[in-house]
Amino acid sequence: MSTQEKTQPKRAYHSPRRQEQAHHTRERIIQAAVRQLKEKGYANMSLDSIAREAGVASQTVYAVCGSKKGALARILESTVAEQKYDKIRDSIPQMKTGEERVATMARFHSLMQHNSASGFELMRGAGVISPELAELEKDNDMMLYEKSLQSIRQMAASGMLKKGLSVEDATDLYWAYSAPGIYRRLVLVRGWSMEKYTEQMTRIFRFLLLDENEKDGGQKKDSGTEETGRA
Amino acid sequence: MSTQEKTQPKRAYHSPRRQEQAHHTRERIIQAAVRQLKEKGYANMSLDSIAREAGVASQTVYAVCGSKKGALARILESTVAEQKYDKIRDSIPQMKTGEERVATMARFHSLMQHNSASGFELMRGAGVISPELAELEKDNDMMLYEKSLQSIRQMAASGMLKKGLSVEDATDLYWAYSAPGIYRRLVLVRGWSMEKYTEQMTRIFRFLLLDENEKDGGQKKDSGTEETGRA
Repeated sequence: MSTQEKTQPKRAYHSPRRQEQAHHTRERIIQAAVRQLKEKGYANMSLDSIAREAGVASQTVYAVCGSKKGALARILESTVAEQKYDKIRDSIPQMKTGEERVATMARFHSLMQHNSASGFELMRGAGVISPELAELEKDNDMMLYEKSLQSIRQMAASGMLKKGLSVEDATDLYWAYSAPGIYRRLVLVRGWSMEKYTEQMTRIFRFLLLDENEKDGGQKKDSGTEETGRA
Repeated sequence: MSTQEKTQPKRAYHSPRRQEQAHHTRERIIQAAVRQLKEKGYANMSLDSIAREAGVASQTVYAVCGSKKGALARILESTVAEQKYDKIRDSIPQMKTGEERVATMARFHSLMQHNSASGFELMRGAGVISPELAELEKDNDMMLYEKSLQSIRQMAASGMLKKGLSVEDATDLYWAYSAPGIYRRLVLVRGWSMEKYTEQMTRIFRFLLLDENEKDGGQKKDSGTEETGRA
């Protein structure tokens, strides 16, 4: 019968058009909230002004965001929706040498910071606005820390990590030196190109994590010339 | 006559007791605002709640801060009142070797970040709250950049700067890698001691700015063994 032919596709795709529309409206509201926040700041924006900016009914903005704090939470969630970066991150452990590994890590962070810069920039101080948002920001920080730990564990497993450097310290350093504040100052304020920034990140990660640099940047000061590592 | 004897001391000291009291009240209000911001966040605090916390009349808080945004501006100004660090900063160019110079720069930043951590932490996102506060934050950023430029110029004048590194790039790097976000992640989140953090800053500044590391961390990749710099 033709009934099956008619109904099956609908059920299999979970009404894609409606889902797409809802997703699109939500995106429009979030983008409008980002623009309002940039232009007016948190103190002067309102859910009504977001609705006007997005060209949707105020009711819809209230349904999506609930409150002004909620609007910030939606922006924060959308900025840190890290799933889209998982694929690139997954390519990191496929790199066979330490040099290639740190270069890929640097490219990954450059790309993520480039794409999320305006979000990171706006969200830097979400925690100042309310304790709930501080929790969200903290959760995101911890998620990024966990992902850093994974990458460092994989390096350690491949025998690439600097001799004498613990996985814990290496993770702390990798995480700290990929803080958005560095991108902010070099690229957003000082106007460095993405290429120059990525090269700089590669140099720093190499210095912090790989053995070749140990005689200059390792744990000891004034180390002798006989310590050439295992290169 | 005795008139002169009576009035002169008063005029010479500009009524120190009153000035001291005014300063003390202002400090109490700022500290109360910091606590309120930490506890409740910007969205939930008020000038009245600051007055209660400080134990002063609401009228006094209104006179000092003007508005909620004004309270944040007062905190920001007090955090970034950099004069108190000028003395330590002035000792930097007295260091006669590059090693001592970067170690002093690291100690200086550790101390400043340690003392201003809660202020920096709260102020990270002042710019999100209103465009006026964003301007204040930007001014502070630029002031710190200018101070970094001074230190780097002094290093260059003493012939300490890495060969081939421009004063501009060196300043960008020195400024970027002393961003509070690194202190935040290593010390505030990961619990590094001040000593460990200061050692880490010294290693990074040495790597970024001094010649001895050029063969590992300089502009070229895979540099040969004959490039030993001028050590």
